[in-house]
Amino acid sequence: MQALDRRREHLMSVAARAFAERGFHRTSMRDLSRASEMSLAGMYYYVKGKEDLLFHIQKACCEQLMAGAARVLGGGAGPAERLAAFIRHHVTFFSSHMAEMKVLSHEAESLSGAGLEEVRGLQRSYADLGLGLLADLEAGRGGAHVDRHVAAHTLFGMMNWIYTWYDPQGPVGVDALSDAICRLFLNGYASGTDWIAPKKGDSLEP
Amino acid sequence: MQALDRRREHLMSVAARAFAERGFHRTSMRDLSRASEMSLAGMYYYVKGKEDLLFHIQKACCEQLMAGAARVLGGGAGPAERLAAFIRHHVTFFSSHMAEMKVLSHEAESLSGAGLEEVRGLQRSYADLGLGLLADLEAGRGGAHVDRHVAAHTLFGMMNWIYTWYDPQGPVGVDALSDAICRLFLNGYASGTDWIAPKKGDSLEP
Repeated sequence: MQALDRRREHLMSVAARAFAERGFHRTSMRDLSRASEMSLAGMYYYVKGKEDLLFHIQKACCEQLMAGAARVLGGGAGPAERLAAFIRHHVTFFSSHMAEMKVLSHEAESLSGAGLEEVRGLQRSYADLGLGLLADLEAGRGGAHVDRHVAAHTLFGMMNWIYTWYDPQGPVGVDALSDAICRLFLNGYASGTDWIAPKKGDSLEP
Repeated sequence: MQALDRRREHLMSVAARAFAERGFHRTSMRDLSRASEMSLAGMYYYVKGKEDLLFHIQKACCEQLMAGAARVLGGGAGPAERLAAFIRHHVTFFSSHMAEMKVLSHEAESLSGAGLEEVRGLQRSYADLGLGLLADLEAGRGGAHVDRHVAAHTLFGMMNWIYTWYDPQGPVGVDALSDAICRLFLNGYASGTDWIAPKKGDSLEP
């Protein structure tokens, strides 16, 4: 059973990379068979087809994001620290799952039917978690100067755009990246404060 | 000649909408022929094919963005006002060219060869303009607390993510949207200031 799970994980990981590189619609099951070194029949033992693979990649990505966020939010910190923890977790997860996160962001419209609805539901729950953190921050500060829904979409834009430019092997480390996004967003949303103290040895300069 | 230009504009506009809705790879020249009510032969009079159409849509979009930005930056305002003008122009252009801007953002990897290089060059020039504005702002304030390249990518993420969620006919008007992004970014980048005064009658609440 564990070996089967590993084969399925392997297939999902290969498919995520292929979808991220070539795009979902330009990748065939035959391409995936070559890349995974599995037979077509072997692949169909694990998934119903290409769209089913996309669904499972996106679903797993959402579930891991949600579970990880719940974990880092478990502590009793204040609203700004909680929002910063949410951002740091999202950016860090992104940088270690670039292919899966690109596939989640870029191929959002490639699913259809019940699979699309399920993934959208998971994304809504995750977005609601973010919105709740913004609401808590506002409550603690007596309101923000930017509409909360606009701010939340903008924050996800800051974070999810990463897939178009960020190279985890490049000069900007993931801690520096998540620190930058925390600063830009938190100081922008709750302006007049510069609440994130620079950490020792933490520099954004390459 | 003007009638020919209008036919070509019509074809580009129809193609941008189709690529935005169905995606470039899922749209055929036959689909575009139906949507534009032009014959296939008629379409090939104006463009070499589907990729050529995509190239011209993306190129026109970049050129219009650049020309518009140069126009709004022509005045003699200070660095923060200039950056705000750049953001406002980008967001306003986006909201009135949602299909074209989605095609520019989402289909960035669908071109190849010389066309891809040319569009990338235009995008680089535009990004350099944004980077220059950040540098001016830093110079005036004695340095920012976030790496300039990271900040620029993050700003483009805030703005370009619009295509995934913003509805120009919805409750948030384009002025309120661009004002929100100006506030979030400028206060985040040059924190400790809350320099954008709310305008009269300007509310983000629906």
